[in-house]
Amino acid sequence: MPKILSPVDLSVTRFDQAVPGHNRWHPEIPAIDTVEPGEVFRLECLDWLDGQIKNNDDPSDVRDVDLSVAHVLSGPVAVRGAEPGDLLVVDILDIGTLPDMEWGFTGIFARENGGGFLTDVFPEAAKAIWDFSGIYATSRHIPGVRFAGITHPGLIGCAPSHELLAKWNAREQALIDTAPDRVPPLANPPVSDNALLGQVSSGSPDYARIAAEGARTVPPREHGGNCDIKNLSRGSRLYLPVYVPGGNLSVGDLHFSQGDGEISFCGAIEMAGWIDLKAEVIKGGVERYAITNPIFKPGPVEPHYSEYLVFEGISVDENGEQHYLDTNLAYRNACLNAISYLQKFGFTPEQAYLLMSCAPIEGRISGIVDVPNACCTLAIPTAIFETPITPS
Amino acid sequence: MPKILSPVDLSVTRFDQAVPGHNRWHPEIPAIDTVEPGEVFRLECLDWLDGQIKNNDDPSDVRDVDLSVAHVLSGPVAVRGAEPGDLLVVDILDIGTLPDMEWGFTGIFARENGGGFLTDVFPEAAKAIWDFSGIYATSRHIPGVRFAGITHPGLIGCAPSHELLAKWNAREQALIDTAPDRVPPLANPPVSDNALLGQVSSGSPDYARIAAEGARTVPPREHGGNCDIKNLSRGSRLYLPVYVPGGNLSVGDLHFSQGDGEISFCGAIEMAGWIDLKAEVIKGGVERYAITNPIFKPGPVEPHYSEYLVFEGISVDENGEQHYLDTNLAYRNACLNAISYLQKFGFTPEQAYLLMSCAPIEGRISGIVDVPNACCTLAIPTAIFETPITPS
Amino acid sequence: MPKILSPVDLSVTRFDQAVPGHNRWHPEIPAIDTVEPGEVFRLECLDWLDGQIKNNDDPSDVRDVDLSVAHVLSGPVAVRGAEPGDLLVVDILDIGTLPDMEWGFTGIFARENGGGFLTDVFPEAAKAIWDFSGIYATSRHIPGVRFAGITHPGLIGCAPSHELLAKWNAREQALIDTAPDRVPPLANPPVSDNALLGQVSSGSPDYARIAAEGARTVPPREHGGNCDIKNLSRGSRLYLPVYVPGGNLSVGDLHFSQGDGEISFCGAIEMAGWIDLKAEVIKGGVERYAITNPIFKPGPVEPHYSEYLVFEGISVDENGEQHYLDTNLAYRNACLNAISYLQKFGFTPEQAYLLMSCAPIEGRISGIVDVPNACCTLAIPTAIFETPITPS
Amino acid sequence: MPKILSPVDLSVTRFDQAVPGHNRWHPEIPAIDTVEPGEVFRLECLDWLDGQIKNNDDPSDVRDVDLSVAHVLSGPVAVRGAEPGDLLVVDILDIGTLPDMEWGFTGIFARENGGGFLTDVFPEAAKAIWDFSGIYATSRHIPGVRFAGITHPGLIGCAPSHELLAKWNAREQALIDTAPDRVPPLANPPVSDNALLGQVSSGSPDYARIAAEGARTVPPREHGGNCDIKNLSRGSRLYLPVYVPGGNLSVGDLHFSQGDGEISFCGAIEMAGWIDLKAEVIKGGVERYAITNPIFKPGPVEPHYSEYLVFEGISVDENGEQHYLDTNLAYRNACLNAISYLQKFGFTPEQAYLLMSCAPIEGRISGIVDVPNACCTLAIPTAIFETPITPS
Repeated sequence: MPKILSPVDLSVTRFDQAVPGHNRWHPEIPAIDTVEPGEVFRLECLDWLDGQIKNNDDPSDVRDVDLSVAHVLSGPVAVRGAEPGDLLVVDILDIGTLPDMEWGFTGIFARENGGGFLTDVFPEAAKAIWDFSGIYATSRHIPGVRFAGITHPGLIGCAPSHELLAKWNAREQALIDTAPDRVPPLANPPVSDNALLGQVSSGSPDYARIAAEGARTVPPREHGGNCDIKNLSRGSRLYLPVYVPGGNLSVGDLHFSQGDGEISFCGAIEMAGWIDLKAEVIKGGVERYAITNPIFKPGPVEPHYSEYLVFEGISVDENGEQHYLDTNLAYRNACLNAISYLQKFGFTPEQAYLLMSCAPIEGRISGIVDVPNACCTLAIPTAIFETPITPS
Repeated sequence: MPKILSPVDLSVTRFDQAVPGHNRWHPEIPAIDTVEPGEVFRLECLDWLDGQIKNNDDPSDVRDVDLSVAHVLSGPVAVRGAEPGDLLVVDILDIGTLPDMEWGFTGIFARENGGGFLTDVFPEAAKAIWDFSGIYATSRHIPGVRFAGITHPGLIGCAPSHELLAKWNAREQALIDTAPDRVPPLANPPVSDNALLGQVSSGSPDYARIAAEGARTVPPREHGGNCDIKNLSRGSRLYLPVYVPGGNLSVGDLHFSQGDGEISFCGAIEMAGWIDLKAEVIKGGVERYAITNPIFKPGPVEPHYSEYLVFEGISVDENGEQHYLDTNLAYRNACLNAISYLQKFGFTPEQAYLLMSCAPIEGRISGIVDVPNACCTLAIPTAIFETPITPS
Repeated sequence: MPKILSPVDLSVTRFDQAVPGHNRWHPEIPAIDTVEPGEVFRLECLDWLDGQIKNNDDPSDVRDVDLSVAHVLSGPVAVRGAEPGDLLVVDILDIGTLPDMEWGFTGIFARENGGGFLTDVFPEAAKAIWDFSGIYATSRHIPGVRFAGITHPGLIGCAPSHELLAKWNAREQALIDTAPDRVPPLANPPVSDNALLGQVSSGSPDYARIAAEGARTVPPREHGGNCDIKNLSRGSRLYLPVYVPGGNLSVGDLHFSQGDGEISFCGAIEMAGWIDLKAEVIKGGVERYAITNPIFKPGPVEPHYSEYLVFEGISVDENGEQHYLDTNLAYRNACLNAISYLQKFGFTPEQAYLLMSCAPIEGRISGIVDVPNACCTLAIPTAIFETPITPS
Repeated sequence: MPKILSPVDLSVTRFDQAVPGHNRWHPEIPAIDTVEPGEVFRLECLDWLDGQIKNNDDPSDVRDVDLSVAHVLSGPVAVRGAEPGDLLVVDILDIGTLPDMEWGFTGIFARENGGGFLTDVFPEAAKAIWDFSGIYATSRHIPGVRFAGITHPGLIGCAPSHELLAKWNAREQALIDTAPDRVPPLANPPVSDNALLGQVSSGSPDYARIAAEGARTVPPREHGGNCDIKNLSRGSRLYLPVYVPGGNLSVGDLHFSQGDGEISFCGAIEMAGWIDLKAEVIKGGVERYAITNPIFKPGPVEPHYSEYLVFEGISVDENGEQHYLDTNLAYRNACLNAISYLQKFGFTPEQAYLLMSCAPIEGRISGIVDVPNACCTLAIPTAIFETPITPS
């Protein structure tokens, strides 16, 4: 078993772990360790909300979640020799659950606290608990489905430089300023509450400054971060831009499974767990390959399906108004069409929404030029259902 | 060989075909024939631009294309017994090329005449001619790639009712009215020029009225239509809502291959060809299955790949401005990232853009809830390249 | 459309085709044409039995078939520059049906006339006619199944040299001599009856000699020939050893579909059709790559399935006698197990046997070292059945 | 984590485990535990040779291995309610390595001690040690390859009844008696040496009798047992016939990876590890589904590949002698052809033989009716090699 750089103890919170993680992005959060290129290492990870969501049937924990906790990350890990402008070649060798938490959760956040892609249709909180039986997940809250997880880290990336961090904060604040009172907010600025900064202890002189500057972890950005890409799955090889010496790689938000879009926001099957990684360095790779955002090769053991039922959506809204090539709206309609359809097979709207969030759903931008309608598709592998769901 | 309901002769234009097709949607365009449920029939199809684009190295035909010609469709075909509210179950049994045109074209429309997803980056017209060798396509204009086609009809759907047609025209005109002088236009209203209305001859009393009302064929709509979904591939089973007696099914815009998004607009490998179809009827299926837009099951013979290189994009624009969960922008960035990367391997920007339009590219909405950044991905199957394109 | 080197007319027999084919292997059968390396060409092919099996419900044609007719091949085609010791790189670009014969047949030969893998269990002739609807086949003789064809040439290879031909005839005669009266025979020696030798007309002085020497086409041999490998499918790239100047490539025995083993002998869905090919030359490739038998890369458009039901067989015979690592017996048992199982779902034994012969069945040598039992498996894609066939 | 019914301690041998396993099949070996239908449980497993093969570069341990040790199994586990004639529905939920042994071994047994499929070509012992990095294996003994494991239990099955056991022993002895001095032996009779009989202690009155009767575990038989089927992979659902009350399910011989045939006998990547299982009962299932041998549905997370290089073999031996439809010989030739080919790319014969044994190779019975030549194929996924291996 590889060396565990960040053991986690699920009986205590992020504040009491032997090796503290972090939940903000900042170049001054010190590396927890330095690894050699090619060395395999393991990071154990708390779930992204640090245990706030419980294995029970009451969604009030989802409704009342404190999102300033998110995402509790493991790391950063420095890679010897990595310098700004290099590419870090990261192999995601494997991901697994922790013996004390062989279950996960999928939630619909309330409109007032987090929201989600269909929050205006589903303003109330809901949740589903998933039990893991080896490679499979089932839920007492969504009977009739079983599927193999396409397990992946929702969040992985290198630490930003000061310059990059400043750019993030500036552009996101500018967006917030356009509608500062919006619910849910357009973006989330740095906030000191609940800031966890690794080995920068809350009593240290730098803590307040770093907490006030540290970027929130929800958005994906140039460094990757919270991309929530289901196909960045076990066995993937990822190429990450390096911005600070050592790279300072962090990871968290492990997902047992997720559908494209992760539409209910807390939409993956969220879990605590471990991830085995190996990193190597391509010197000067950022410029050599014209890298702006990370690129990757998916792993070879994703569950594969041969039969799908596909739903289409176009960019006309519920009021019949025509929008111009709006893929968000088109995908929204594809999702709503699938949810309406699944109700004909006995699922509640909430069950269907949760399922479209966490099952291995393909969400595709199918046509984006046929003015004025974008066409998006949502493809459901029919094998996840215990009984047939095609029209007859 | 099934009965050919619409033979085409590539040596003459749409106006001189034995069985005239149509290039507008209108309930009064009469069916060219009535088929029995379960009967297999063949439609031959002109390319969507009726031969305007030539097999040569000069893109001026793409630049000067007359888009009012689009799309020349074959049909409509009535299915005995189909009534409004039914679902037409259409099997796309096979698709092939015509002996006289075993090549296809992919174009970048000029900004002033058609545009496309990246028209502000690529304002000039360009084209690539593809030669078909059985299941494979190669292009003298993009050396170094070869791939099997994921052949599909870009456009298929039933005729709208008068009510539905009126709704389309109203909502699209309302959009146009918000910026009537935009280039390219936000949408395209009915236009009489070049209107082809099947057996409604241009001298008939109804012609002018139908031409003035007939919806343009570019946008996908509730009935399906020009969805440009690459996975609606050979062997698919499609469920189409019926709006008029007989259903009146039309098809056209055959694609030898296309990437998700068909980003350069004339972005598929466009071809003339034939398509074999079979239709059956599910009575009352629209309500029974809560159908708003078509649904389908993809075919089993799509080319399959196990290795992809994936590019990410987020919703920050070239000026560094942050946008809110904008998947169009995120996918745009994923596309631009891929195009920049491919230039490092010797492709010109135009070659890369054309290739991302027509090769079997997967375009996914990966994360759509991580405020403020949407994350889209574009996955390129590496096997389409003759030489390796992964970083090393 | 590529140039057709061997047009076929299904209304007349092999003797009256414009470009005569051949049904024996001999180096002196002259090439029908010479192609340039890289040139695409089409061969039209009769079915392997030259129309003896009819599209009706009476299996007497299968029972009474004249096997000395087999296989009617198209070619040989010379490739400019190919010399003995070279490898011919043959791209199987596409395969299709002829407009006059959009159906195929699968037969069980009678024990007395041809036999098959399970001939002692199924000594009587039977047949199933398959109707092609685009990529799919269905049979009125085996209701309840539909599947996409994994279309391939059952037979393809270069002409043998005189030396190689002599070796074939000698070793096969030696086998025959061990049991010359066996029914069915152990092998088939050259026979003049029905010999078709291309442009060597039956009145020519060489005819009798070549007919007396020409190897029968049933067995696969060093040159490939009648390998009946289902995965040598459309889009494959095949590397064939060359034994005579020009290579002299012939092809025939087109299969719409076949299961591994082609167990009922006339076990594929046999068809007439066309095949598009392209050949290039690797000089000295036989030695450079240590080639004894052909090698190939399968095509990318094989129908793909994600769910299989797998049957095991071991090398113990029906009498309970133990055999030593006998994969034939193990696979026989796997086949018989599948046939018994399918009877529980309403198929007759003959239907099940025919289906295991022609559907896209995977036949695997799973374990071949666990003395004394070989273990073979037969995997059936469950999607070919209209109703579920897994235990419940 | 499920309850571990058979914890193993790799620092001691099979004789000193807390819950002793067994290495013979006998109905009187008592169940170690009884599980409820639907209950998930874990079995930890020693490697099949109980630690005889060491992680070093010296193959003398393979050469001198004591095969009477094989296979050390975990179990038997009784399932409440299972009765003879029932089918046990066993879900293979997951398989993993033990923290103390994240490596595996592949061996070539010496001809004098075990042998293998190609033992006359490879009479000397050899071995390769594989290091596991998450889902991937690499070997310092076979540089240039890396692949994801298709992890599976080589051996799983229910205990035989007395009647079935007697049948096994009788038929195998009859085979042995045909050549009692053969090296390697045709089969292996019961032997008391090294017999491990679970909770039947070696001092108990029944021990000697059971050891003298207990069937050896190497061959697969009607109950399944040592089938070595690579596709009985993680996530599979297996249907096993029950012969004794409770079923008494045992498992062992975990494989990180294996090629079809497992040709070098110790040919998988052999490992210690754990397996999570769940069992349910179909009453009377054996008769209802005409089950002779187990059937199964493969798991959905097998590594999948799209590009293969395929080698053919026919049933003519090295001396040029023709054999009649001999698939063993045909597969042998396909294997030898692949091994010769790989030597052209720098592999030694032993490396190639080991690789064809343990990598995810497809071994198919392609044609088995084309008298007198069977045709078998061996398909190598090209992605397992770091550098291209196709002819050029």
